[in-house]
Amino acid sequence: MMALMDNPVRAAAAASLDPETISWQGGIDGHASLIDQTRLPARFERIAVETPDAMAEAIRRLAVRGAPAIGVAAAYGICLGARGLRDRPAIEAGVARACRLLEQARPTAVNLEHMVARMRRTAEASAQLAPLELRVALLNEARAIHDEDRALCRGIGRAGAPLVRDGMRVLTHCNAGALATAGLGTALAVLYEAARQGKRFEVVAGETRPLLQGARLTAWELERAGIPVTLICDSAAGRYFAGNEIDLVITGADRIAANGDTANKIGTYTVACLAHAHGVPFYVAAPATTFDFTLEDGTAIPIEERDASEVWRIAADTPPPPGLRIRNPAFDVTPGLWIRGWITDRGVLTPPFTELRGAP
Amino acid sequence: MMALMDNPVRAAAAASLDPETISWQGGIDGHASLIDQTRLPARFERIAVETPDAMAEAIRRLAVRGAPAIGVAAAYGICLGARGLRDRPAIEAGVARACRLLEQARPTAVNLEHMVARMRRTAEASAQLAPLELRVALLNEARAIHDEDRALCRGIGRAGAPLVRDGMRVLTHCNAGALATAGLGTALAVLYEAARQGKRFEVVAGETRPLLQGARLTAWELERAGIPVTLICDSAAGRYFAGNEIDLVITGADRIAANGDTANKIGTYTVACLAHAHGVPFYVAAPATTFDFTLEDGTAIPIEERDASEVWRIAADTPPPPGLRIRNPAFDVTPGLWIRGWITDRGVLTPPFTELRGAP
Repeated sequence: MMALMDNPVRAAAAASLDPETISWQGGIDGHASLIDQTRLPARFERIAVETPDAMAEAIRRLAVRGAPAIGVAAAYGICLGARGLRDRPAIEAGVARACRLLEQARPTAVNLEHMVARMRRTAEASAQLAPLELRVALLNEARAIHDEDRALCRGIGRAGAPLVRDGMRVLTHCNAGALATAGLGTALAVLYEAARQGKRFEVVAGETRPLLQGARLTAWELERAGIPVTLICDSAAGRYFAGNEIDLVITGADRIAANGDTANKIGTYTVACLAHAHGVPFYVAAPATTFDFTLEDGTAIPIEERDASEVWRIAADTPPPPGLRIRNPAFDVTPGLWIRGWITDRGVLTPPFTELRGAP
Repeated sequence: MMALMDNPVRAAAAASLDPETISWQGGIDGHASLIDQTRLPARFERIAVETPDAMAEAIRRLAVRGAPAIGVAAAYGICLGARGLRDRPAIEAGVARACRLLEQARPTAVNLEHMVARMRRTAEASAQLAPLELRVALLNEARAIHDEDRALCRGIGRAGAPLVRDGMRVLTHCNAGALATAGLGTALAVLYEAARQGKRFEVVAGETRPLLQGARLTAWELERAGIPVTLICDSAAGRYFAGNEIDLVITGADRIAANGDTANKIGTYTVACLAHAHGVPFYVAAPATTFDFTLEDGTAIPIEERDASEVWRIAADTPPPPGLRIRNPAFDVTPGLWIRGWITDRGVLTPPFTELRGAP
């Protein structure tokens, strides 16, 4: 195995690249800046986002993705709805429009809804302030969401690290890392913290078709952090379970129902089924904001269907046969019964999640 | 659903494309002709193959693939080893060299070994003939292998068609169709025969990473044949099982051990695990030549590992991160216990396959 860095993400930062997935540049008339994740790993480029429309588009086209990260991105996007405005009706209208636009950008991750709702409450609670003060309050709230996300990631890492033991081979799917959050990640925060504690382990990353977040983002993050990582095609996972080469599975989550049913990137259900059949513990890592206690189970979680071209374009440079139907669901729902535990900033929890329901 | 053709492959042939995967052009100094399956579906092109080395290369780079098809291709490749030769020592040396070259072209499909062994036996049995007669005997044997493969496909289709019922949704993985054989296919022969019998059903095809035989070949074949087909990413299969949208699974096979353990395209194990967990019947369709009774179980089946670039090249147009390990096993081994039955030219069989062991 390779030497593991003391702090993987600091090591990454030292490697001359800025690892911050999302940042805000300037004051209340500033703008958001994002790593364009569609270009990684071939190109590491940041894009400036100056309008709520551009932020919604960045979220839709996955320039920024990952449930926690799009929550933070949406909060900044709402601030952009009032950018340059000075009078109250225009600010309120711009913020309301940005809220509607951003909460609809993608349907599955509940963090997006939760963060937009929080920004709306901030706007309502600040309605008596002077117009510029209202805008300051919104930007402060977005920055608080951003800072909290960093802290949630650290909490998830600390809660989950004891599950990782020396010599383990840990499978993950999609990217639930620094690029998926404003901090260290969720599933990968657990691995970064375990590595920081000096544990030696290896990671197997599924490439995550169709958009290859595993191949492009997770492999890139882990390799930069000095954590040994093996990339495989998603469907090869079965062979690794069959050979007893997987000891632990950790993925992120986009929405968790009250009974523990968990929506996450398409393919998670398949991995969880393999883990269940082979007696390998399967954990979900996510901040408490990912729970949706309004849903009794996973059947009502809205599942985004994305464009067929994401599936087809690697098959041929010509259009698909005219009669061919192509389906591209972006998420699936793993039954809570297949999940050993939910690694959150409040500890490793299990249904009925009373620790979270009791919270305000 | 779309109207189903009376005979799908005849319908395909009528659609102005030559559907023959492999053919022999001319007499004993002729050559082989293959559909270049690496170009499908964007381009439908045939390549002329004039040497055993070119045939081995076509097999290695998957211009021709599918366990039965590469058996037929190897038989013709052995004939090419004596192409243009007139004296016995040269013919015998050329044939022996071709046999060694072709049996090593790919390791997992046992048909290749079996067909090379059969051509060797023909050469030995014909050693007393005049040189040209020896070459005629070899070409006749290759043609017999070719004709038999067509008949085996028809037998598999007839044996399996009763398993397909009206309204079913049938999942298949990789391509076990006309392109994988010299005839109608194995798994797809079952579907073509069921369609010919007037049954109405739909097919779900996994794209089959990394080389997309499902997206490029199976979807193309079925669409041309008028059988409704939906293409999905491999890892999305779980979502379809979860939604009770799969009633039957049929795949091909590259090698079947005595206890029924079955090597097939990477990802088959994962699909079989899903089918097992959801109580969906999983069948393997293959000619009797796919059985390898020298192996007690699947652990000794040689598994080809292919180049990492097949996995990486869609992730970026730059090289992978230097520390990233990429694994690309081309096959996996599904436990016989997860397989409901083996659809063969000798009927739908189960272990210990006495019908086949009794054969000469």
